[in-house]
Amino acid sequence: MHALKVTRAEDFPEWYQAIVREADLAELSPTRGCMIIKPWGYGIWERIQGELDRRIKASGHDNYYFPLLIPMSFIAKEAEHVDGFAKEMAVVTHHRLKAVDGVLKPDPEAELAEPFIIRPTSETIIGDAFSRWIKSYRDLPLKLNQWANVMRWEMRTRMFLRTAEFLWQEGHTAHVDRADAMDETMLALEIYRSFAEDYLAMPVMVGEKPENERFPGADCTYSIEAMMQDGKALQAGTSHYLGTHFAEAQNIRYQDKEGGLALAHTTSWGVSTRLIGGVIMTHGDDDGLRTPPAIAPRQVVIVPMLRGKPEDAEVSAYCQELAKELSALSAFGAEVRAFVDTKDMKGAEKRWDWVRRGAPIICEIGPRDAANGQVSFIKRIALREGEKVKTHMLERGAFIGAVASMLEETQTALFQEAKMRLDANIRDDITTFADLERYYGTDDEGGEFKGWARASWSRPTGAALDKVGEQLKSLKLTIRNAPLIQPASHAPCIFTGAPGVEQILIARAY
Amino acid sequence: MHALKVTRAEDFPEWYQAIVREADLAELSPTRGCMIIKPWGYGIWERIQGELDRRIKASGHDNYYFPLLIPMSFIAKEAEHVDGFAKEMAVVTHHRLKAVDGVLKPDPEAELAEPFIIRPTSETIIGDAFSRWIKSYRDLPLKLNQWANVMRWEMRTRMFLRTAEFLWQEGHTAHVDRADAMDETMLALEIYRSFAEDYLAMPVMVGEKPENERFPGADCTYSIEAMMQDGKALQAGTSHYLGTHFAEAQNIRYQDKEGGLALAHTTSWGVSTRLIGGVIMTHGDDDGLRTPPAIAPRQVVIVPMLRGKPEDAEVSAYCQELAKELSALSAFGAEVRAFVDTKDMKGAEKRWDWVRRGAPIICEIGPRDAANGQVSFIKRIALREGEKVKTHMLERGAFIGAVASMLEETQTALFQEAKMRLDANIRDDITTFADLERYYGTDDEGGEFKGWARASWSRPTGAALDKVGEQLKSLKLTIRNAPLIQPASHAPCIFTGAPGVEQILIARAY
Repeated sequence: MHALKVTRAEDFPEWYQAIVREADLAELSPTRGCMIIKPWGYGIWERIQGELDRRIKASGHDNYYFPLLIPMSFIAKEAEHVDGFAKEMAVVTHHRLKAVDGVLKPDPEAELAEPFIIRPTSETIIGDAFSRWIKSYRDLPLKLNQWANVMRWEMRTRMFLRTAEFLWQEGHTAHVDRADAMDETMLALEIYRSFAEDYLAMPVMVGEKPENERFPGADCTYSIEAMMQDGKALQAGTSHYLGTHFAEAQNIRYQDKEGGLALAHTTSWGVSTRLIGGVIMTHGDDDGLRTPPAIAPRQVVIVPMLRGKPEDAEVSAYCQELAKELSALSAFGAEVRAFVDTKDMKGAEKRWDWVRRGAPIICEIGPRDAANGQVSFIKRIALREGEKVKTHMLERGAFIGAVASMLEETQTALFQEAKMRLDANIRDDITTFADLERYYGTDDEGGEFKGWARASWSRPTGAALDKVGEQLKSLKLTIRNAPLIQPASHAPCIFTGAPGVEQILIARAY
Repeated sequence: MHALKVTRAEDFPEWYQAIVREADLAELSPTRGCMIIKPWGYGIWERIQGELDRRIKASGHDNYYFPLLIPMSFIAKEAEHVDGFAKEMAVVTHHRLKAVDGVLKPDPEAELAEPFIIRPTSETIIGDAFSRWIKSYRDLPLKLNQWANVMRWEMRTRMFLRTAEFLWQEGHTAHVDRADAMDETMLALEIYRSFAEDYLAMPVMVGEKPENERFPGADCTYSIEAMMQDGKALQAGTSHYLGTHFAEAQNIRYQDKEGGLALAHTTSWGVSTRLIGGVIMTHGDDDGLRTPPAIAPRQVVIVPMLRGKPEDAEVSAYCQELAKELSALSAFGAEVRAFVDTKDMKGAEKRWDWVRRGAPIICEIGPRDAANGQVSFIKRIALREGEKVKTHMLERGAFIGAVASMLEETQTALFQEAKMRLDANIRDDITTFADLERYYGTDDEGGEFKGWARASWSRPTGAALDKVGEQLKSLKLTIRNAPLIQPASHAPCIFTGAPGVEQILIARAY
């Protein structure tokens, strides 16, 4: 028996939906493809925002806020960008409603001369500002960031992973030359890697996307890729070197030191609420989410076990006092987030609610604990011994003394577990396409656990790359990225047998 | 001579635009009526968000995130709500663009069966969720908050004060009965009052809006109103008791303790980036903004006065060390925000940039300061002595020791100055409409400084109230609110001469 009705092994996609629902992270809304993010999910996002914002600011970026709506003509400026996004844009065409025969309609007299697009990403409207703000090399680098909602009218949506509206952070920078812009691209990528690993306890593979997977309008795109518990890859963050494409399209030029006029080199990079989907599929188990303590909105939840008896008052007071003392502690450089759950609900129900949400430490305090000055608690990361829930007990002072290190150990253990899974499930013994077919072609998606393949290729481009893409597609595979860390020499290309020039990661992906 | 090209006395609206631009708070964007919020403006918003969020959470509200787009049919459910908002809504009608003869257009084949509205406020979509989530009295009160962007297609826009898109916080709650919902309405109002006064140093008058100024669909609306330096009122925050209007329209019902089915009573309340406009017009002077230290993104700015000489290195090191020591201090319960401005720009230009932005303390450190272990600095709140900028000097240790109290004294002084202006400019001697005409009718808006009038009225409703509204409109006046604190007895009604029942505040307003 588990706290979720469906296990990972039974049906991974169903398990995912169950955890989103049962951990009270989010739910579908009446607006097509959009979700309502609930307090436990939004609280995780607030932690992500807080820490990532700190890192982004510390690396020299300022926060701005640009308009939600982008004039349609802006989108048209960069050709590849249009191709990439035009098919999934929400278009605002009217600015008023009117009751016609008692039925509310867009007022035909309030049609906009030029429609607006709800931003799918902000390169075009920020590029326009860059063209006004950047005059001289002294204005460079210009490094900014924005926290915003964006919209892409996706046809198939999945909570957190692919929703029509999502929340994200988008960095946009302009530089004097390629070298400086590439440094920035890699700086953002390294912020994402370290953040994902240190803070989300989610190990990632860092590398460059193949040409056919680049951001529309980019010279090159880098990504962090994480392995989910079904073996699939999740692209968890991207960083793009945009070359001078947007600068040309939008006239972002500066006077250089010699007085000449030069094009700026720009970058952009982003991560989104999709990260929460990654956290779920990295750390969830059949009892629900195991929230990494660094991002858990509540790290220690205290459930008073009340029985409607006189000793209840003492139990409640003991719990409040305990929470107060815990809040004075520090873990991950911040105040420990302790919480007493005083909701009018049975203790056992509360236990399971917090287990499903994945609060790292759940204390259950009854009259005996209060009387004896002790703390009974569950560690979410080691919930069970066999089938049974394992309860620990410590003298109160000892518990308080141990909390910070328990939280930090949990964070490390979650990372180690995921790291071992990642390392153990990247196969190096697949050297021909026939091997790939044999391994991935034998059963359907959703069957036996299959990780990634690391193979050499000759880095074909254009039509040859399209052909590779088709071949992989027949096995529901894609190239995730070419890791930054490469071996000294390469085996022959897995697709063509030609001399290999680069190692790539091949996987099924979200 | 002043740092802004136009003074408050010369042209208050122009002065306002100048300060928004020169303090680098925001600028107009190519999207009609929308602004780009720049780092100093956004940094102020981040402080507002941080502290208000803390207070909202501490009073028992959880953060959620609801969709940006609202199905059109939702808006139609509450009749007054439609009337109030239908005229200014951005309507999404298509989900794809298509190139037709090389020109990008909304794809006619991608027209939505039901259009969506960009939220102007979220009562309808949140009410829909309430109707699903609330089953029993045990689910109440349900108290939530959301930080979001919203859109109202205003015809006349003004930076921060009235923009098509703005950022805000919207609280939405549901309760078992009127009493509980009214307590919540007043709780939110008190959060706004104390936040405005303690944190923005902006004194406000707290009261109930007259019937004709209520939120569309509310039973009653309360506001905080602040006096700007031109004597006009700014509605800086509102809190609404919605009765059961939205509950009826959206079927928000719960099973009560007796097993019957009852309608929930709901509230909503919000403040927005408009607060920044209020801060500007409360605390700005002819040299720019004077940012209240509690919300200043940088509280102590250190400008190294470099001359391209060998001693520059020592000056730079001295500045960095000073910033480090200041950052270890605490003011307003948080780390002091110290910053060394290392931009490649002349020291004098930097000084004036920070004066216009209103950094509370600006240090200018030259070789002599570094050599003698002293700090030369300007207090933004007392910038000049006569025409001249007044520079202070303190021994380094003494300066560090004094910084926190200087910041806190500045905060208090800004509040006191604004409070004295408010108190001194509410006239109690206007008792008839003829008095009002004499006082406000003698010159045009923008002339001599004129504050508010506090007068008695008989609280007319319906057509009689409309007539009062028309009378006031002829003088460009409105009723701001009826203060919560009322005298024991009332003079005759200023409009009708009938017995007075309530005191109201009358003013020109933004």
